[in-house]
Amino acid sequence: MSSTTKESTETVLAEKRGPVLILTLNRPDRLNAWNDALERRYFALLDDAENDPEVRAIVVTGAGRGFCAGADMDDLAAASSATDLSAPERQRPREFPLSVRKPLIAAINGAVAGLGLVEALYCDLRFSTPEAKFTTAFVRRGLIAEYGIAWLLPRVIGRSRALDLLLSGRVIRGAEAHAMGLVDRLCPQETLLQSAIDYATDLANFCSPASMSIVKSQVHRAMDSDFATAVAVADDLMLAAFAHPDATEGVTSYLDRRPPAFAPLGPVSTD
Amino acid sequence: MSSTTKESTETVLAEKRGPVLILTLNRPDRLNAWNDALERRYFALLDDAENDPEVRAIVVTGAGRGFCAGADMDDLAAASSATDLSAPERQRPREFPLSVRKPLIAAINGAVAGLGLVEALYCDLRFSTPEAKFTTAFVRRGLIAEYGIAWLLPRVIGRSRALDLLLSGRVIRGAEAHAMGLVDRLCPQETLLQSAIDYATDLANFCSPASMSIVKSQVHRAMDSDFATAVAVADDLMLAAFAHPDATEGVTSYLDRRPPAFAPLGPVSTD
Amino acid sequence: MSSTTKESTETVLAEKRGPVLILTLNRPDRLNAWNDALERRYFALLDDAENDPEVRAIVVTGAGRGFCAGADMDDLAAASSATDLSAPERQRPREFPLSVRKPLIAAINGAVAGLGLVEALYCDLRFSTPEAKFTTAFVRRGLIAEYGIAWLLPRVIGRSRALDLLLSGRVIRGAEAHAMGLVDRLCPQETLLQSAIDYATDLANFCSPASMSIVKSQVHRAMDSDFATAVAVADDLMLAAFAHPDATEGVTSYLDRRPPAFAPLGPVSTD
Repeated sequence: MSSTTKESTETVLAEKRGPVLILTLNRPDRLNAWNDALERRYFALLDDAENDPEVRAIVVTGAGRGFCAGADMDDLAAASSATDLSAPERQRPREFPLSVRKPLIAAINGAVAGLGLVEALYCDLRFSTPEAKFTTAFVRRGLIAEYGIAWLLPRVIGRSRALDLLLSGRVIRGAEAHAMGLVDRLCPQETLLQSAIDYATDLANFCSPASMSIVKSQVHRAMDSDFATAVAVADDLMLAAFAHPDATEGVTSYLDRRPPAFAPLGPVSTD
Repeated sequence: MSSTTKESTETVLAEKRGPVLILTLNRPDRLNAWNDALERRYFALLDDAENDPEVRAIVVTGAGRGFCAGADMDDLAAASSATDLSAPERQRPREFPLSVRKPLIAAINGAVAGLGLVEALYCDLRFSTPEAKFTTAFVRRGLIAEYGIAWLLPRVIGRSRALDLLLSGRVIRGAEAHAMGLVDRLCPQETLLQSAIDYATDLANFCSPASMSIVKSQVHRAMDSDFATAVAVADDLMLAAFAHPDATEGVTSYLDRRPPAFAPLGPVSTD
Repeated sequence: MSSTTKESTETVLAEKRGPVLILTLNRPDRLNAWNDALERRYFALLDDAENDPEVRAIVVTGAGRGFCAGADMDDLAAASSATDLSAPERQRPREFPLSVRKPLIAAINGAVAGLGLVEALYCDLRFSTPEAKFTTAFVRRGLIAEYGIAWLLPRVIGRSRALDLLLSGRVIRGAEAHAMGLVDRLCPQETLLQSAIDYATDLANFCSPASMSIVKSQVHRAMDSDFATAVAVADDLMLAAFAHPDATEGVTSYLDRRPPAFAPLGPVSTD
């Protein structure tokens, strides 16, 4: 899998630790600001991870002092002064990378802003430090709530807190982000990445990849469906789960008091 | 009401304390694990409570050390190895017991897992202790987010916290569950049940049963409707409330500084 | 703008402090209870503010000891004993004042109940004191969840906490309201109003009025839309933002390390 070879000149580094893939945004001199090259490589590495049976969970972090400063200001200056505006190139469904089937954990090691925060919200959970700085930033640049953040943020931290962060573009620290629910786990800087990896490893070792994939999809669909529909979907999925080998392995390993040996997730279906 | 007679051999015990009905899941040697007999009796007792004008609020708790360990493992082992899989028998609408018109308070006295947690989420509020253990468990058994939990949990604790608990199946204590919003009130073990009963008694003594029934239905419908629809529904219900004797009693008792004497809720309409 | 002249006999006072408009509910002998005269004036002042380019953010507070005690009991007694019930007069869309394009901050200086709490929830954020008393009150008067509260409250504080407050009508203090997420910022009584004004002034000085207006609308629409729709809307708005002078000013002022000079919002379009 050549795209995951670790090269210091790459905009995103990839490293496997057992069943966990660590992706590191790697433009440290720019606080890992997002540009086209970084996006292409990040998305390609996620595609690789989806199709790699060895990868059961993914941790995303930043190189250097920051996580991601948002869209690269040089690109943004170009966009806001461009005379030929056109829709952003979009090769992927709008749900990506929210639609990645494997758990995606952000280890926010420092400043996160704008599009960087959007990408952190596309992760399932966020680990961070008490000192890390968070800001939506958009309204301070004359911009709007980009990509999925107007939908996601209220569903993570509630409507008022989302309006607070989106209307003010103010900077909050990790401790306040945690109190708001924007960060799920606070850790000291020294142990942040390892804590996220430990969490991801626990998922990889003890949770059925098929089950986690279905649960991610259920939660996403249930946000946009009514209660009765969500229950009907769950009823069908429950029957299918009973017929899947992981249910037998899950129950018998539990009764045997041993770790489960769940099958890896197959490649993404292309039909 | 024969079905609420307290019998130690019953899978669910029922006891009235004034206007509050206490239902106790009663398979303590199995941590009150859920099986068909328990479900039938629990649901039948809720039906009775709906039609009993004396019952104005309901508290659900567990006998012994736990609240409910989830689906009985013996049943689950049978299900996962069954060759003749069929849809679970469903005699009731998918909203049940979320659709119960009277306030339903869970007093979570100990371990709650899987389906037990689902049932606790079908209650309007959850009281618990700092030590009680909570887990969704599903993905660790090769199962999925069963019944309404994929819809309910994100709407109670937010999307990220729900994904944390559903993807990891990890065990959290009551103190963390409270910090997340999964538990509404933390109490010492010794006073837990009484605290839940006190809360339910306050509702029974001071809140209009008709109003509480309508509010439960409004909140449930409003989760699945847009804002303008919810306001239109509220406008119609407000006019109807003004014409109901409880509004007169509510306002006059307030002005007279005396407790209100609201009418009980009638039996469930069968049309 | 005659309607914003400060007159002590008015039911709502209006005062400008630079770019911030302060509206003070002003029936202190009735704890600023809501009646038709107050509503007409409050809504008219909000209309004026929408069309006044000098106003970039609005703070709402109460005169005297309370914020708003809810619907005036005299009016309520009349309504509940009226024989000729008809729909409340509604001259405005049901989204008003949630649809106000400028940030609306509540500075809850004391008791807030019933309709008063609804109006506080129509504000984008709530500042309050540890001692202020909050209650939905409705079910204790034989009433229902009025106007938009059954939709709003669960989206601000989650489903269970909303049911707790709506089913019990119990009184909570500001400190508990803050822990629940119902209050965004706790301040001592002496500095409450100034803290809200400072926050509003920061928005006025550093955030694009056009961006804030769009973000409010995005968050509101995204609550009632699915994820893909919200992203599609954001993509269109992002392109439009790039073509707007505020994006150029936002980026260049940032790169120049100077405060931005964003254009004021124009009057409300009437087509």
